[in-house]
Amino acid sequence: MKLCRFGAPGAEKPGLVDADGKIRDLSAHVADIGPDVLGPESLAKLAAIDPGSLPVVEGNPRYGSCVTGTRQFVAIGLNYADHAAESNLPIPEEPVVFQKWVSCIQGPNDPVTIPKDSKKTDWEVELGIVIGSRASYVSESSALDYVAGYCVINDVSERHWQTERGATWDKGKGFPTFGPIGPWMVTADEVGDPQQLSMWLDVNGKRVQDGSTSTMIFGVAEIVSYLSQFMTLEPGDIITTGTPPGVGLGQKPEPWYLKAGDVVELGIEKLGRQRQDFVAWQPA
Amino acid sequence: MKLCRFGAPGAEKPGLVDADGKIRDLSAHVADIGPDVLGPESLAKLAAIDPGSLPVVEGNPRYGSCVTGTRQFVAIGLNYADHAAESNLPIPEEPVVFQKWVSCIQGPNDPVTIPKDSKKTDWEVELGIVIGSRASYVSESSALDYVAGYCVINDVSERHWQTERGATWDKGKGFPTFGPIGPWMVTADEVGDPQQLSMWLDVNGKRVQDGSTSTMIFGVAEIVSYLSQFMTLEPGDIITTGTPPGVGLGQKPEPWYLKAGDVVELGIEKLGRQRQDFVAWQPA
Repeated sequence: MKLCRFGAPGAEKPGLVDADGKIRDLSAHVADIGPDVLGPESLAKLAAIDPGSLPVVEGNPRYGSCVTGTRQFVAIGLNYADHAAESNLPIPEEPVVFQKWVSCIQGPNDPVTIPKDSKKTDWEVELGIVIGSRASYVSESSALDYVAGYCVINDVSERHWQTERGATWDKGKGFPTFGPIGPWMVTADEVGDPQQLSMWLDVNGKRVQDGSTSTMIFGVAEIVSYLSQFMTLEPGDIITTGTPPGVGLGQKPEPWYLKAGDVVELGIEKLGRQRQDFVAWQPA
Repeated sequence: MKLCRFGAPGAEKPGLVDADGKIRDLSAHVADIGPDVLGPESLAKLAAIDPGSLPVVEGNPRYGSCVTGTRQFVAIGLNYADHAAESNLPIPEEPVVFQKWVSCIQGPNDPVTIPKDSKKTDWEVELGIVIGSRASYVSESSALDYVAGYCVINDVSERHWQTERGATWDKGKGFPTFGPIGPWMVTADEVGDPQQLSMWLDVNGKRVQDGSTSTMIFGVAEIVSYLSQFMTLEPGDIITTGTPPGVGLGQKPEPWYLKAGDVVELGIEKLGRQRQDFVAWQPA
């Protein structure tokens, strides 16, 4: 099952994407795709609905972030060995954990703002985990039971802010618009093995990232179990799981970064694709 | 004006603490002390109410976190020169920024859980800033206009998790119960200069921290302005601003940490006090 949110920013409606790729309006069944509909019982109720009974949404509406009500946007760093190498950093012995501010969350195809005076705005295609049930001290063997589904995330990053302005990374990860999420949350049952998904990212039509979740250092189950020892994961929380090689920072012979006018497209097998115009910051 | 939330966890009501220290029930005027009541106009409406017209709350109810709906719990590290020295870390050239998971937020006097197998659970009395209005790229001279008020925070920390398990700090800062906030949010007009507040913390009756916000490296206005360049601060967001010397990590001749049965009391001038029993982790 593919769940989405469609419509204008702040006024999104819940939707279901049917087998033909059409958005069907779920408003008669749930108010939104939020924490209260992500648990196994709620998802089972939605799965029992005949998509053909739902109104087709005409036209090409905007997608919002595929989940609303996210209170914790957790991120794993350096989770692909080759990306650690291109960042000139050692392979971590355990997951590197940081956060993206929830105020950076936006729709998958909304424009991304290059911050004022930014010289190092970079891209990162990542597998997103959507938490469906509260998780505290869960074992690796049961961890996937707490996952509602998966989605595409562009973990947009300002490298100067992330790595050259103090020891912690958070300040370079959550500028407004730096968190495109979606277009859909695909439920875990439909995704199958989350460690067998190809993923890619193009800048202006040039393929720069071409990887697979099969080369993650720490897989989805290990990440969920690990995090649940340090925090309570709650329904609607999103974990972005690190990026394969090919980010701007890792380009040879010289790193290069995004500028206004650039177009970034990215996708993950089974989870859909995103497209963002990168635009210059403007005073409000 | 002192605003609070009182009652059982998850069922708190909004309150106002009057000049005699009595809690008055604000339920007839606002649903809760959340983002929608923290802006200047909403606070002015509350300030216009005669406290004597509000019902007195009898007994000694539990206090919840003084603000609900917090989506971003931002933290500043090493913001007192003496604390940086006791941590054997250099004085930062610009604010060190990290996050506490919002799922760690709790009432000021609720018990704090020492995580399973934790050996280094530590205390930090800190001035909390409550954001009242959305702030993006605000100047230092206007930054205080975006502050609704101030509160006491114990930035409870697991030092091994914070500093010995990867480069970022977040995993040691947000275990469930590690964010006691309150008892009150005191509005900015009543606090006056936030850089002239004495602060203290006792462990089992022994004074271990005895400082003042006057020795912050980066003051409140600078912090708010600085953060607003990296993120959008939203009403209800809370910033905890760093701790003066005297944490467990900095004790001489040897660091020492909290254990089950310990009692921590802390307070800040004009902002009230907290008291926490530290308890052993128990399986749910």
